[in-house]
Amino acid sequence: MTDSFYKKLYQSHQECPKCPSPVVISQFFVDLMQTLFPDFSKKTFSSQKELELHLNKLKIELDEMLTRNPMHGEVDLEDVAESFFNELPAIHERILDDITAMYQGDPAAKSRSEVIRTYPGFYAIAAYRVAHVLHSHGVKVIPRIITEHAHSKTGIDIHPGAQIGEHFCIDHGTGVVIGETTIIGNNVKVYQGVTLGALSVDKKDAETKRHPTIEDNVVIYAGATILGGNTTIGANSVVGGNVWLTRSIPANTKIYYQAKMHNSDTEQTDIYVYKEN
Amino acid sequence: MTDSFYKKLYQSHQECPKCPSPVVISQFFVDLMQTLFPDFSKKTFSSQKELELHLNKLKIELDEMLTRNPMHGEVDLEDVAESFFNELPAIHERILDDITAMYQGDPAAKSRSEVIRTYPGFYAIAAYRVAHVLHSHGVKVIPRIITEHAHSKTGIDIHPGAQIGEHFCIDHGTGVVIGETTIIGNNVKVYQGVTLGALSVDKKDAETKRHPTIEDNVVIYAGATILGGNTTIGANSVVGGNVWLTRSIPANTKIYYQAKMHNSDTEQTDIYVYKEN
Amino acid sequence: MTDSFYKKLYQSHQECPKCPSPVVISQFFVDLMQTLFPDFSKKTFSSQKELELHLNKLKIELDEMLTRNPMHGEVDLEDVAESFFNELPAIHERILDDITAMYQGDPAAKSRSEVIRTYPGFYAIAAYRVAHVLHSHGVKVIPRIITEHAHSKTGIDIHPGAQIGEHFCIDHGTGVVIGETTIIGNNVKVYQGVTLGALSVDKKDAETKRHPTIEDNVVIYAGATILGGNTTIGANSVVGGNVWLTRSIPANTKIYYQAKMHNSDTEQTDIYVYKEN
Amino acid sequence: MTDSFYKKLYQSHQECPKCPSPVVISQFFVDLMQTLFPDFSKKTFSSQKELELHLNKLKIELDEMLTRNPMHGEVDLEDVAESFFNELPAIHERILDDITAMYQGDPAAKSRSEVIRTYPGFYAIAAYRVAHVLHSHGVKVIPRIITEHAHSKTGIDIHPGAQIGEHFCIDHGTGVVIGETTIIGNNVKVYQGVTLGALSVDKKDAETKRHPTIEDNVVIYAGATILGGNTTIGANSVVGGNVWLTRSIPANTKIYYQAKMHNSDTEQTDIYVYKEN
Amino acid sequence: MTDSFYKKLYQSHQECPKCPSPVVISQFFVDLMQTLFPDFSKKTFSSQKELELHLNKLKIELDEMLTRNPMHGEVDLEDVAESFFNELPAIHERILDDITAMYQGDPAAKSRSEVIRTYPGFYAIAAYRVAHVLHSHGVKVIPRIITEHAHSKTGIDIHPGAQIGEHFCIDHGTGVVIGETTIIGNNVKVYQGVTLGALSVDKKDAETKRHPTIEDNVVIYAGATILGGNTTIGANSVVGGNVWLTRSIPANTKIYYQAKMHNSDTEQTDIYVYKEN
Amino acid sequence: MTDSFYKKLYQSHQECPKCPSPVVISQFFVDLMQTLFPDFSKKTFSSQKELELHLNKLKIELDEMLTRNPMHGEVDLEDVAESFFNELPAIHERILDDITAMYQGDPAAKSRSEVIRTYPGFYAIAAYRVAHVLHSHGVKVIPRIITEHAHSKTGIDIHPGAQIGEHFCIDHGTGVVIGETTIIGNNVKVYQGVTLGALSVDKKDAETKRHPTIEDNVVIYAGATILGGNTTIGANSVVGGNVWLTRSIPANTKIYYQAKMHNSDTEQTDIYVYKEN
Repeated sequence: MTDSFYKKLYQSHQECPKCPSPVVISQFFVDLMQTLFPDFSKKTFSSQKELELHLNKLKIELDEMLTRNPMHGEVDLEDVAESFFNELPAIHERILDDITAMYQGDPAAKSRSEVIRTYPGFYAIAAYRVAHVLHSHGVKVIPRIITEHAHSKTGIDIHPGAQIGEHFCIDHGTGVVIGETTIIGNNVKVYQGVTLGALSVDKKDAETKRHPTIEDNVVIYAGATILGGNTTIGANSVVGGNVWLTRSIPANTKIYYQAKMHNSDTEQTDIYVYKEN
Repeated sequence: MTDSFYKKLYQSHQECPKCPSPVVISQFFVDLMQTLFPDFSKKTFSSQKELELHLNKLKIELDEMLTRNPMHGEVDLEDVAESFFNELPAIHERILDDITAMYQGDPAAKSRSEVIRTYPGFYAIAAYRVAHVLHSHGVKVIPRIITEHAHSKTGIDIHPGAQIGEHFCIDHGTGVVIGETTIIGNNVKVYQGVTLGALSVDKKDAETKRHPTIEDNVVIYAGATILGGNTTIGANSVVGGNVWLTRSIPANTKIYYQAKMHNSDTEQTDIYVYKEN
Repeated sequence: MTDSFYKKLYQSHQECPKCPSPVVISQFFVDLMQTLFPDFSKKTFSSQKELELHLNKLKIELDEMLTRNPMHGEVDLEDVAESFFNELPAIHERILDDITAMYQGDPAAKSRSEVIRTYPGFYAIAAYRVAHVLHSHGVKVIPRIITEHAHSKTGIDIHPGAQIGEHFCIDHGTGVVIGETTIIGNNVKVYQGVTLGALSVDKKDAETKRHPTIEDNVVIYAGATILGGNTTIGANSVVGGNVWLTRSIPANTKIYYQAKMHNSDTEQTDIYVYKEN
Repeated sequence: MTDSFYKKLYQSHQECPKCPSPVVISQFFVDLMQTLFPDFSKKTFSSQKELELHLNKLKIELDEMLTRNPMHGEVDLEDVAESFFNELPAIHERILDDITAMYQGDPAAKSRSEVIRTYPGFYAIAAYRVAHVLHSHGVKVIPRIITEHAHSKTGIDIHPGAQIGEHFCIDHGTGVVIGETTIIGNNVKVYQGVTLGALSVDKKDAETKRHPTIEDNVVIYAGATILGGNTTIGANSVVGGNVWLTRSIPANTKIYYQAKMHNSDTEQTDIYVYKEN
Repeated sequence: MTDSFYKKLYQSHQECPKCPSPVVISQFFVDLMQTLFPDFSKKTFSSQKELELHLNKLKIELDEMLTRNPMHGEVDLEDVAESFFNELPAIHERILDDITAMYQGDPAAKSRSEVIRTYPGFYAIAAYRVAHVLHSHGVKVIPRIITEHAHSKTGIDIHPGAQIGEHFCIDHGTGVVIGETTIIGNNVKVYQGVTLGALSVDKKDAETKRHPTIEDNVVIYAGATILGGNTTIGANSVVGGNVWLTRSIPANTKIYYQAKMHNSDTEQTDIYVYKEN
Repeated sequence: MTDSFYKKLYQSHQECPKCPSPVVISQFFVDLMQTLFPDFSKKTFSSQKELELHLNKLKIELDEMLTRNPMHGEVDLEDVAESFFNELPAIHERILDDITAMYQGDPAAKSRSEVIRTYPGFYAIAAYRVAHVLHSHGVKVIPRIITEHAHSKTGIDIHPGAQIGEHFCIDHGTGVVIGETTIIGNNVKVYQGVTLGALSVDKKDAETKRHPTIEDNVVIYAGATILGGNTTIGANSVVGGNVWLTRSIPANTKIYYQAKMHNSDTEQTDIYVYKEN
């Protein structure tokens, strides 16, 4: 280590703007979750007023974080905390509906409470719902840190900019990626390892739609990869596991791969055909 | 935020039954692991008696958690802690055997100690072995929280209800999903991203077998997805990477995909054939 | 639990050599990251001298860990901490270059600071760069614990022994596995769920090359699995999502699967052809 | 331990009203101190607005604590948090003046910053100033917990109900006790081990003045004990070390003990006379 | 620092026997207190059985600590944990009676709950009651650590070996010292700064009574120092503040100092006579 | 709270220089203590080299703290850390000798290990020994924070500037105050509540000797207060409990108070004479 290395490093520390640490932001999110979902929580409230005060404290904490981390642009963050908490009842409803989707969509789920306590899909979607509203108000880094917190905990990576409809269900979920400009309709279900990603990696395309559109009632099985801003999966379609799609498919379509199958007893090689159950 | 929102939220807090927090349950599991696997541990015991007492303290902690979170049914949880700790030596043997499987199955593993210290597969399987015994005694939420703790840490999601034979090996493991009614034989090896999942998502099928059966000595490569309660992978078979299976394959079978390969130098397109090593 | 169980367990605790706990090692790595990357950090330094002292303290901490965990072999760990910190400026440059690769390769990235604060790919590659240098000096368990720390946090599993060129980019990253003897050229990009793994699982092959070679400028899409020590992906090739490769492909090749597509409206079944964008 | 013991104990837990834990109250106080006295603090604020928001968050936290711990009486705690924070600038001025008193009164003090960072007298008086205002609004247990927090940390025990004038100085301070109905004028200085206590211990005297009155400019040396509600130390008096007073002394008085002194060389016994310096 | 210094220091670490850390012992005591005194506690129990299990867990923790820290003598610690918890209901009653003494003895106390939550005297006496029973079973270091924990927190230093009767009250308490062979009757009250100490400091007197005897119903005011194994304060006596006693006083005695009082207005010097209130 | 209040407060935060937090300094001291005194410690060292490295890490930590908190004067702190650690073996010897003094001076002490584990006098003297060396090198705030850390924990307040000879013993100790310019000879013993303080409180006397001189082999009983820079307690003297001294006493002197004693049975009032044991 030379003096010039120390010098350069020290300078980079000097130049780095203060902003709320990921730890503070994650704690805000966890506290909000514990307030909204008692099953998730060790929090107790002795009265309704105490709960009200607690939500108002969270509002100030959000305002503190925004103040410490202002936008570098024309957007005014003055009223974001106020607006976000005005929308909180609606966000809460949305997440409750997602919980219902996950409960109904998994025979292994014994109760909604189990979904809240143990389903990573619940945690990741709730983080997305919260982050998405902040993102839509023009907040930049904080929503990303919220979804990356959930990503680290669940392995599910949903960009706050994605637009996701009602009654969304992620089962298991590790490895799911949902990109910034993805549009997902209502009543969609995705399994672990599903990617809704981009083909283009050109910085000049940052403002264009780079991720797919998934219409209502689509099911996407584990490991499927769907790429590209012009790729649309038509309503009611089923995407088979591990399929890699870079073009649209029409509504009511099933798509899957065929495998070669070789048996060393019979020395025969067959095509393995996907049979719908 | 309106008064009716506060009111509804407060009511939901009032109605939520107390139960042991995920933090407490995870600490119990980690403490048990540190006691069973010294390589994993900073714990020191000055004598055998101290170790005995420590295990007996863990037994009471389990009993406390069960008392706080009783079954809502006919099952009697009175003796579960006692029974579980009676079975602990057998569970310990089982996990030691899994460690051997992982050590033997990965040339990169330098020692059993390295497997214990650094292999996520070890951690996830150990969590499953512990959770499975609790689950088989009728305990509901606690085993799920134990396996989700391991899921969050390792990306490996094994349902406590799955039945997994001896000498089980998971390599790397991120993205592995093993569903509630899966049956796995002895000496099976699965790689990262493998799903043993369900096709049916009908709540009325909750009591039926919805996940596949994997017979002895099967190897399933990374990213393969095997779905359905009637799907059986016959003994000694090899499932290629990323293959998506929804029907059974017989014993001694190899199954894989073929890819198209286009070379822009020669402008030729060929079939890429999987060649066994 | 019988006395013989207690006895055996106590004995295993007695025999287990002391070595630095994963917690201590992870804290060392996190502290190093906070010192090298101010965006990642809540650390403040009041002067360049304080930063210098802090880096020198980290050097002693590394030496402490090595002293507690000596190699059982001929390698001399005496000077490893010194050497590692001499190489630190170069490691730092390397990671800064990887950050540039990730920033340029993702239109969703708004700034290098966002990459440092929120990209799991950054975290996993930085852990690898640090661990690789330690590994190349003959240190055994510590580098593995560093990369497993990153694996647990990001779902990205890179073995410290892998050789990875400049300007490396991992996008999203959950489920990525890069094995011990992998060789990766410059300017390579891999997406989530990509495996660069081994076919052989024979312990006697531990010293041979078991993982693939990826030449310069290759892109590997989500979920692709590339296996085997003799498998080389030629320069400038593109590996499609979910493709499973166990043999080499030449330079300038695109490889992908074809899917069957069945539409229940038209009752037609077609081949779905991958179309390059 | 018998069943009736368990039963009684469990019942006492059931009957115990929830109220804010000492830990939460102490954290509130410490946070307030760090906001008011930067020398005491690791807190940083990036802008004035962030500081404003932080103080407003502390206001809500106080309101939360009061809501959780309502008075059992006619006093309305609705507006206490609001009132307290309206008075905060005045409280702040008061404590700054006390700091000046301590700085001027101790030649060993090198700066006001040293007083804030290291003087237990500062900490105990600040806790009293804060607790006294809450107490004067009718809050019961919380102010006591704040002063006991300071008591535990400093060994200085000031009851929130005491009335203490401006420019108050406690030097060293361990063992200082200032009772509930004590009245202290301006510019008073007390040393370690000084008690301003009660003689009466009759519960029916709870509402009467049981502790002494100390007029302006009095100095009380280490270990002096002054007891009783009718005991007044007149202005400008000096109370010698270890003196025990239960009656008033007039203004401008010096009071002290005489000791016997026996020298084993000379075998003489003398009266040791206190000589003013 | 020379090599011989390192060598000597390292040797002293090698030779130091393992024993439970003060942190572990303090946590045991705090947990016990929270279980016995709900006002002191954030602990909640969902049922009587959970409380029973918790007390049984504490019993094992005590046994663990004793196992790690065996006596070096003939005393058998095998059954101490069992015996201690059998006596726990009686210890509990004793402390409840002390709480009553403190509540009745201080007009400032608004409720027994306030005594438990905020009185250092309560904390120190409770620690003594617990430590004394352990000490009487022959346990050596652990009881000392429990009372030193309370000493550090409250400034009240009671040796576990002291014999203290029922209905004991300490008010304020900072600086109270009660030595190893002190005997205190029933219904005694001591204020802050009171020492019940030894005159002899000869190691060969370690087994003799070196500390005073305080008979029933004695009150000892702040700062009084009573020394010597043959010193007895007769029943119903009152010891004035700061008095230093090294010989016995009979029952029904009041003892106090006289002070000189000099008034600079009148230039008169008077004897200040203690007047009983 | 008005805007001008916020403004003033924010400004004070801006102006406050960064310096090491009391928490960091206390941790340094505790870590040093655990390294020097294994009985005090949960630290384990696997080899002498690890211990050496650890002490060297502590040296860098001290240097970091000094760098963050430079003197505002002509003193050069460059080499202080180096010098301090060169003197550490001698400091260690000094404290070991103090431990011997406390062990020999208290019949209740069962072993030197008990002194280290539970005697507040040990802790406070050790903190003084460490702080005094730093203070003698011109370091200002850090030594004060170290001794205040010990003051808060033990109730013993020793200024780092005091000069204390060998074989020093403090018994119990709560309330002991030893001022900045005190000089104490060898083999001195003080009990709880003893003050060695100043009479002058004039800032212009900051550089003069304001605290007493205690010559060799003096014993000072509980609660005695000795004040003034010209006050010398001659060698081999005994100062009785609670005595208040502001002038010198010659060598070989015993000094004590006489109390009035009134017996309500006999209605007699006597002088209580201190009788040496």
